[in-house]
Amino acid sequence: MEKKITTLAGIQTRSFSASLDEVILRDGKTGKRIKIDHPEAAAVIPFVSDEEILMVRQHRYALGKETLEIPAGKLDPGETPEACVRRELLEETGYEAGELTFLYTYAPAIGYSNELIHIYSARSLKKRRKKIDEREISSVEIHNLRQLRKMMKKGLLVDGKTLLALFLTGIKVF
Amino acid sequence: MEKKITTLAGIQTRSFSASLDEVILRDGKTGKRIKIDHPEAAAVIPFVSDEEILMVRQHRYALGKETLEIPAGKLDPGETPEACVRRELLEETGYEAGELTFLYTYAPAIGYSNELIHIYSARSLKKRRKKIDEREISSVEIHNLRQLRKMMKKGLLVDGKTLLALFLTGIKVF
Repeated sequence: MEKKITTLAGIQTRSFSASLDEVILRDGKTGKRIKIDHPEAAAVIPFVSDEEILMVRQHRYALGKETLEIPAGKLDPGETPEACVRRELLEETGYEAGELTFLYTYAPAIGYSNELIHIYSARSLKKRRKKIDEREISSVEIHNLRQLRKMMKKGLLVDGKTLLALFLTGIKVF
Repeated sequence: MEKKITTLAGIQTRSFSASLDEVILRDGKTGKRIKIDHPEAAAVIPFVSDEEILMVRQHRYALGKETLEIPAGKLDPGETPEACVRRELLEETGYEAGELTFLYTYAPAIGYSNELIHIYSARSLKKRRKKIDEREISSVEIHNLRQLRKMMKKGLLVDGKTLLALFLTGIKVF
């Protein structure tokens, strides 16, 4: 086990922070760890039919490029994961989820972040809004699973939560 | 697209860093982004038989608990992903990989990190060392896939790269 001695420095945005901690390592020596203190997050794989899902294209600053992903976001304070995916789905795609099914909770980056992502699937979708969150989303796209399997074979889907959600709903790639 | 205006602050360890950047958002306003600048990483799912894999138990400071994972680590400067997984497998488990197969490259945390993880499977393993890296690893364990499927059904495996590696090798959970 590694124990914190002190926080040496920190940076933060409106929604999460990162700190540089001095820690005691397992062998008794001291070391430094960067730790992202992140709220929980939730993601949803929204089925518009048995073979088609809604996805969003989004520019990711940290990665320096656009990615094709399932809708997702951080939980607001006090918000449940289920409420969060309903809100994010509506904001990012304009669709409302009829039926939501919980699939899995996982930690995407255990080396430096305490983030947990709750993954859901959604069915019985209804279009409610034309306007989407254009500050975050470049486009909303419908992709069929056959297409996505081809993209995965070429390594073109890179987002971890999206890959995991596809596998959790039983997509076979290889 | 979001463009950097300036770096407001930064923190760093020996192997990676995080910065707080002021950026121009898509709507022309300014905002702040935390970005982890991370070297690439590699992970390996090591098969000791068709139904059994090697795993390591490791305390994760950011998560504040022990996790059960496949061996993995950051690439050293100039190191190839393949050399990295061979080195990490040997350091963390004492085993040498005969045959390595590349499975996928993905981005675990696109919201705040540029990290890419290259996932491999390994077969024809040979035990080469008794001593393992005890500063990082609590124990080396052999788990069979049936056991791991049960753990996944209970949500007991939380590490993203481990889950993805299991799915990429064709494990069926639900």
